[in-house]
Amino acid sequence: MKLMEQKILECGTVLPGNILKVGNFLNQQLDVDFLTEVGKEIARLYKDAGVTKIMTIEASGIAIAVMAAQAMHVPAVIVKKHPSANLSKDVYFAQIASYTHNNVYTAVVAKEYLNKNDNVLIVDDFLACGNAIKGLKSIIESAGAKLAGCAIAIEKAFQHGGDELRAQGIRIESLAVVESMTDSTITFKP
Amino acid sequence: MKLMEQKILECGTVLPGNILKVGNFLNQQLDVDFLTEVGKEIARLYKDAGVTKIMTIEASGIAIAVMAAQAMHVPAVIVKKHPSANLSKDVYFAQIASYTHNNVYTAVVAKEYLNKNDNVLIVDDFLACGNAIKGLKSIIESAGAKLAGCAIAIEKAFQHGGDELRAQGIRIESLAVVESMTDSTITFKP
Repeated sequence: MKLMEQKILECGTVLPGNILKVGNFLNQQLDVDFLTEVGKEIARLYKDAGVTKIMTIEASGIAIAVMAAQAMHVPAVIVKKHPSANLSKDVYFAQIASYTHNNVYTAVVAKEYLNKNDNVLIVDDFLACGNAIKGLKSIIESAGAKLAGCAIAIEKAFQHGGDELRAQGIRIESLAVVESMTDSTITFKP
Repeated sequence: MKLMEQKILECGTVLPGNILKVGNFLNQQLDVDFLTEVGKEIARLYKDAGVTKIMTIEASGIAIAVMAAQAMHVPAVIVKKHPSANLSKDVYFAQIASYTHNNVYTAVVAKEYLNKNDNVLIVDDFLACGNAIKGLKSIIESAGAKLAGCAIAIEKAFQHGGDELRAQGIRIESLAVVESMTDSTITFKP
């Protein structure tokens, strides 16, 4: 998606530790007109995939997941990192290591929101090492549901999570694939 | 908004501890077609208020905030409960006590996403004691910005946060106001 690459070049900045900061349009301040187009593009890519549900993990994937769900007219299921008192005790869960937070957390979703007839599209803002997606995939498998694929706003190819998942036969659609970053340049995969 | 009351009666359940569980359409599994209507209703209520930005706090308010931002064509700013490595060190913050999580956390937003010319609409899924809104209000004041008002999916009137905020002259628009709840009945304020 050329629009995503342009937006990253216009608004993104590179921080130490291989962090691409896109807080001014994608995950802290949201440019919702732009995200609406992102949702439509995800819907276009997966229009023939028979998706019944979108899944993301809180918090920064929620806006994109909601936009994709809006364009596809399917529910969006939010997997919780920080479960609250109103979460059912009957859950699917996975342990996930976080690169940006430098910790390990338990991702949780109530069993009632996922079933064996679901064909789930995972949506997230970033794909780097792929840990979050591996965790969500194992949750989907625990429910006996199918994984239709993943739709990612920005893939950091140099962290190789995407390659690893594709090698497992998983469909990954990334709207922008960053091949390399320095302080002053961001290079996309053609 | 009659639609919100109907949806709560159809899909909500009451849990011990004054918790109204609406996870199957509002904050765990999202009915995005419904939330699109919620966003339009918020836009209608605040159409003449000169709102420049929508603000919410992660995670369960994000979907509604995004929908309102889409209908109003303004950015949505997400205040963080769990800041990551890519958050600026130059932030506004507030201490907030959480009723559902039973803890106190620091809410943080990068200064670059809020300025003194902003007229901010706070959007959230629930208003109970009003602690989250008080925290966001103090963040808005720290930036020298204006608070246009609040738009809330569900207000729990019997926890009195809404009354307290209205008494301070703050405009609060709640799409459903729950007057009382028992295990078997939910009564709305007329």
